[in-house]
Amino acid sequence: MTRPLSVAVAGLGTVGVGVLRLLRDNADVVAARAGRPIAVTAVSARDRARDRGVPLGGLRWYEDAVAMAADPAVDVVVEVIGGADGPARMLVESALAARKPVVTANKAMLAVHGAELAALAEEAGVPLAFEAAVAGGIPVIKALREGLAGNRITRIAGILNGTCNYILTRMRDEGREFTEVLGDAQRLGYAEADPSFDIDGVDAAHKLAILAALAFGRPVAFDAVHVEGIRQVSALDIGFAADLGYRIKLLGIAQASTAGIEARVHPCLVPSAAPLARVDGVYNAVVTEGDFVGRVMLEGRGAGAGPTASAVVADLVDLARGRTTPVWGAAAGALSAAPSVPIDAHVGCYYLRLMVVDRPGVIADVTAVLRDLGVSLESMLQRGRAPGEAVPVVLVTHETPESAMREALRRIGALDAVLEAPVVIRIEPG
Amino acid sequence: MTRPLSVAVAGLGTVGVGVLRLLRDNADVVAARAGRPIAVTAVSARDRARDRGVPLGGLRWYEDAVAMAADPAVDVVVEVIGGADGPARMLVESALAARKPVVTANKAMLAVHGAELAALAEEAGVPLAFEAAVAGGIPVIKALREGLAGNRITRIAGILNGTCNYILTRMRDEGREFTEVLGDAQRLGYAEADPSFDIDGVDAAHKLAILAALAFGRPVAFDAVHVEGIRQVSALDIGFAADLGYRIKLLGIAQASTAGIEARVHPCLVPSAAPLARVDGVYNAVVTEGDFVGRVMLEGRGAGAGPTASAVVADLVDLARGRTTPVWGAAAGALSAAPSVPIDAHVGCYYLRLMVVDRPGVIADVTAVLRDLGVSLESMLQRGRAPGEAVPVVLVTHETPESAMREALRRIGALDAVLEAPVVIRIEPG
Repeated sequence: MTRPLSVAVAGLGTVGVGVLRLLRDNADVVAARAGRPIAVTAVSARDRARDRGVPLGGLRWYEDAVAMAADPAVDVVVEVIGGADGPARMLVESALAARKPVVTANKAMLAVHGAELAALAEEAGVPLAFEAAVAGGIPVIKALREGLAGNRITRIAGILNGTCNYILTRMRDEGREFTEVLGDAQRLGYAEADPSFDIDGVDAAHKLAILAALAFGRPVAFDAVHVEGIRQVSALDIGFAADLGYRIKLLGIAQASTAGIEARVHPCLVPSAAPLARVDGVYNAVVTEGDFVGRVMLEGRGAGAGPTASAVVADLVDLARGRTTPVWGAAAGALSAAPSVPIDAHVGCYYLRLMVVDRPGVIADVTAVLRDLGVSLESMLQRGRAPGEAVPVVLVTHETPESAMREALRRIGALDAVLEAPVVIRIEPG
Repeated sequence: MTRPLSVAVAGLGTVGVGVLRLLRDNADVVAARAGRPIAVTAVSARDRARDRGVPLGGLRWYEDAVAMAADPAVDVVVEVIGGADGPARMLVESALAARKPVVTANKAMLAVHGAELAALAEEAGVPLAFEAAVAGGIPVIKALREGLAGNRITRIAGILNGTCNYILTRMRDEGREFTEVLGDAQRLGYAEADPSFDIDGVDAAHKLAILAALAFGRPVAFDAVHVEGIRQVSALDIGFAADLGYRIKLLGIAQASTAGIEARVHPCLVPSAAPLARVDGVYNAVVTEGDFVGRVMLEGRGAGAGPTASAVVADLVDLARGRTTPVWGAAAGALSAAPSVPIDAHVGCYYLRLMVVDRPGVIADVTAVLRDLGVSLESMLQRGRAPGEAVPVVLVTHETPESAMREALRRIGALDAVLEAPVVIRIEPG
């Protein structure tokens, strides 16, 4: 057996400690699979005094992660500090410049700066690995870049944020509203004190940007991802969706068309029988459609110390074995130049829910707007009657251009029998 | 871009033709991901005259696959002939001996001769890749050997045979019996004219043996797999299972205990809400449980030209990139010596269905046998009444040793009110 792979870990939060624990607890299986031991030899974090529940004795301690990366006894740098910029980015850039392989769990950094970082890694001729950046322990990066490498991918769709999926699952199971369930999730540690990064879809968008780049073999393009979160999802709409045979999920979806690549994160109505509809709670899942392989789904825990450490160590085992892959799956010169398609060009089916005054002629006015814009209806649903008062009305459309839907919403919202801003949710096959 | 990887394909059946087609149709994406073109340059099959629907012009044709492997212009040999022995094995052995990397889809050969083949590959220092051998296009070999490499795997369970899953799904959906649905499946091409290899569980057992070796880092041990097929599954039992909240699936299961590794293929009652219960038709799926990652499920098409070609080409891309992994995930010297545990040592819950004469005292006799053997019951179900005639009675046990269950079956079968051999099906969490 050759000498151990010497690993420096920058960041001793949940994930960093998880990596230390995994490499200690499973040292035997890791060494067998890696062909050599993998040993953490140096760590860097802000507060040396804090008890993290793992022994740090014998490890070199650095205040400065950049100095740690320069340590000639370090073979690989693991970056689990987090944040798109600041110390994480500085560390990764300096490590790559010094020709040190980097393993990171940092989805924000890869989504925002991934193109430049890939160029740095390619120039230095060293790997930048990031299995842990998307969907925690699910080996989805490896599946897309390697396992499905023979396929022209046509579509990828995923449940990429466990917090949102947990909240939506509880809302459905308990018939409760978003703000109540969010509060519970915060108390239980499934949502952050400031939850906006998760519930506004930004975290899922970071991950989708990475998956879309890998699936379609092109440079990452976070700014081109259309993002909506789950704050507007109500118990009422979850109930109507169920009546219609759907569940509401926050999905990240990227798909190829002749015009280019469409990438979007938003709540979706998904048929109850679709595989993604059945992925509940904190689980993540990614469905990939390839021209030869057909539909492949991967499902597992998308976050947490254990799953994320599992992904980081998989990357370390690859490095120990000398298995490397270009950051975006191909060398910069071999990437696709397919353009991004804006959400306005989207065509799909829509769920539309209105609160209208229950009086004759209202439905006729609403459907006239849709007819004038060429929007055809698949079904309509009205629950309860309350003459003269507000009642919800649900309309489901056939395939419709997003632009026509926007104009329909504008005109319908202006009808005086329509009492609240209409709610619209896109329908996806899952 | 460096020179193309020159590939020789032995066997031009469905899979071989699929590989040719994929490498032609997706040449651009494959070259980008592989870092160089991948080109089939030579083929070998029995009948040169047969029209296979793909152009073979410009390819060197060999009657003798072993001679093809010796061609110095061939970089990699793809073996898609099939069969544990005979030409396939001879080809792979001679290619490895000549230090040629081999990609194979041959599960039978790997399950039966995998230990010797791994030794040959290790000695020659060349890769023997076999993503296509298990679960078609699902990258499960890669996930186990690489993506989850940091984990101590505790259990793996899978739907590994699409023919059986298709038959069981249709039996459930249509309430029909095994032989009828098998006939349909044969007419539709989902089952072979001689279906025994699939329906008796042998094919699933080959795949399970491979997965168990990878999951537990030990040499493949096909002979230690306990195998039962689906011929005995009846519409009656599928119906009772549904009433109890279960579905019947043919699963391959390998799990670690302090005594060693238990590996078995047999019909199972799986809770309807479990992820594997929801995998229907020809789809395959594998659930892996790792100590850090938790539960990961991979689902997709387990057979067919496209999915299998996708897996073969993934292996070729790995070879083109220089990414290699020891056959069983670790060098021979680093594999585990965990022993195999026989099925007699299994402990689990059981579904037991009897046909008994509907008269007072029969249930008392049956339950007395179970009591005497220490088997405790979770539930009992009787459907219909027909005094003096045969009625089915279903019993579900708590955790019970297999040996106690066998003895119980012997004694219950000997009661004269019990009219047919009792049916027993193991219950699994999925």
